Amino acid sequence: MSVTAAQGFEAAGIAIGLKASGGKDLALVVNRGPGAASAAVFTSNRALANPILWSKQVIADGTVSAIVLNSGGANCFTGTQGFQTTHATAEAVATALDISAGDVLVCSTGLIGEQLDRDKLLPGVATVAAELSADGGADAADAILTTDSHPKTAVFEGNGWVIGGMAKGAGMLAPGLATMLVVLTTDADVASDQLDTALRAATRVSFDRLDSDGCMSTNDQVSILASGASGVEPDADEFAHGLREICLDLARQLQADAEGAAHDITIEVVGAVTEDDAVEVGRSVARNNLFKAAVFGNDPNWGRVLAAIGTTTAPFDPYAVDVSMNGVRVCHAGAPDQSRDLVDLTGRAVHVLIELHEGTESATIMTNDLTHDYVHENSAYSS
Amino acid sequence: MSVTAAQGFEAAGIAIGLKASGGKDLALVVNRGPGAASAAVFTSNRALANPILWSKQVIADGTVSAIVLNSGGANCFTGTQGFQTTHATAEAVATALDISAGDVLVCSTGLIGEQLDRDKLLPGVATVAAELSADGGADAADAILTTDSHPKTAVFEGNGWVIGGMAKGAGMLAPGLATMLVVLTTDADVASDQLDTALRAATRVSFDRLDSDGCMSTNDQVSILASGASGVEPDADEFAHGLREICLDLARQLQADAEGAAHDITIEVVGAVTEDDAVEVGRSVARNNLFKAAVFGNDPNWGRVLAAIGTTTAPFDPYAVDVSMNGVRVCHAGAPDQSRDLVDLTGRAVHVLIELHEGTESATIMTNDLTHDYVHENSAYSS
Repeated sequence: MSVTAAQGFEAAGIAIGLKASGGKDLALVVNRGPGAASAAVFTSNRALANPILWSKQVIADGTVSAIVLNSGGANCFTGTQGFQTTHATAEAVATALDISAGDVLVCSTGLIGEQLDRDKLLPGVATVAAELSADGGADAADAILTTDSHPKTAVFEGNGWVIGGMAKGAGMLAPGLATMLVVLTTDADVASDQLDTALRAATRVSFDRLDSDGCMSTNDQVSILASGASGVEPDADEFAHGLREICLDLARQLQADAEGAAHDITIEVVGAVTEDDAVEVGRSVARNNLFKAAVFGNDPNWGRVLAAIGTTTAPFDPYAVDVSMNGVRVCHAGAPDQSRDLVDLTGRAVHVLIELHEGTESATIMTNDLTHDYVHENSAYSS
Repeated sequence: MSVTAAQGFEAAGIAIGLKASGGKDLALVVNRGPGAASAAVFTSNRALANPILWSKQVIADGTVSAIVLNSGGANCFTGTQGFQTTHATAEAVATALDISAGDVLVCSTGLIGEQLDRDKLLPGVATVAAELSADGGADAADAILTTDSHPKTAVFEGNGWVIGGMAKGAGMLAPGLATMLVVLTTDADVASDQLDTALRAATRVSFDRLDSDGCMSTNDQVSILASGASGVEPDADEFAHGLREICLDLARQLQADAEGAAHDITIEVVGAVTEDDAVEVGRSVARNNLFKAAVFGNDPNWGRVLAAIGTTTAPFDPYAVDVSMNGVRVCHAGAPDQSRDLVDLTGRAVHVLIELHEGTESATIMTNDLTHDYVHENSAYSS
């Protein structure tokens, strides 16, 4: 059901020839109301794609009526011509739907540094608008994929209201070049400032904790559109909880489909002085190529975990740290504990528990291993 | 000639069974004087190996008579027992040479998290001391290797004085787990404070600018021992220049032999506001797995360069940046310039020029590509 699970939304996804594969590559999601409250978060990369530059202006007033997304090209580092393409795309949506272009978010994903083909894109907008339907969520989820092997969708059922969502890509704040795009819709009656608060809280502990390959995209965008069509004003905590759950669900789906990955690695850091310290420690391990390659080789190389922690600014004593891998404590107080031969890393799921013994805060980072397929896929991406 | 090129030094390298391969794995370098001035720099990782903890104490007074180095085990995260092994090794050297253990630097390299075999190491020290000779530099350079494919040595001929050196590994401040160890010797008559100043200046623009895989070691150490045997007090600038040249030479040898690498990538950042900004930009690109995988695939994917710059704190305008690869400007003012098809990346050497157009400072970072062989070598390292 994806983005059309919530009342008040229509969607469509079609192929317009932007993707060399001929697959679906243009998606449109429309909020039919009665409300149009919205919120969005964007990549923190300082080199921003044109659709991000545009969408940041659109979201400023908290009102969005539609979001148009294309795969087959990121429209990033494409200069003035590229920005004009984004603008023209929003205008085309506005014309097709009789709304204001200032209420149209735009997302693009694919190769960066190349112009999108306007002659395909702008007529395509009229075509996709004609295909809009209340059960078009699946087609839309399909049309935003690039290197993903399958669509990612999720639905959270609240008390009289629903949040639906679709996602593509492999990460955020540190995503693969296969930019992460997420569209969430809800029929709950929620004002844009509450949406914004709930969305930032949810992404902070879900997509922001996914660090598949340490590479931050130029095009990431997570948007939520609220139609209010259920007529229900949910309890704020309840809504925030639902939004966090659906974001975590989608984040795990992205992790499980990350480019070339053979393991999904959950790095749980406990006993930190602050949550930020726990995140820094987890992220440092998640970005350590030697550790990631070791996991690919089913090697519980905990020394690489400690070496990665040693590069952080978090308070820690290397001779107090415990490290467990898939339930076996291989390092106690910075020295060998149980035999690494007891650790079985042959499954897809790997759990690394890092006990700092410095404080009471914790955080969990989701990442993947570094594999031959990752190297292959990303060395051949633009060819 | 390696570390015995300078007058006043003897060295030896032997096999004592620490390495599974049976190759040479214990090296000793002795300064016969008349002087014993010395300086050393160490990894900035906060999780330090036992030999680093020991050597930091030894170097405090600027006097070193010998340095003992083993491959086949890093003696890191091995607790009190491991530190005692390091201490006992220094004591064994002191006994064999009739010097103070407090004047013996110790270096170890290899797998971390496992104890060194003292029953092999301590008798080995007596054996290697008996092998010391004025032409033992080559054997010493051989005995410190781990995943290196060949020894790295260099000699700089000054005006009546010489600096010789040996190195192993693949990087510093961000080296591979194959820890970087460097021993430099000189017969120039130079005091320890001048050695320290010159060594820090030289490593800052050589080993510190080598960032092969972004992973910081626990065991890195660069030491220089001065015998004064030439009787020549060199001009300070001239000596500093020589030291910088030999460090750059050895750094390039490490880059050329980095684990699994297929390309040596030189990232030259110009037009930065500060040198630190230029280093941050270069290092961010050097650590971007997507960029590194693209180079492996001979793909001049400049968009990944800009995306990496966007994660830094350096002042820059994405729409002012120019990027050239092997002489072809593929990005001008943040948009496509010449065709990427004109760029030939099939050779080993890749030059990336990043023009920020913000200021007048510059820096050059040396790195490698991300390859199947890198993943293979590091997923199988401890098995």
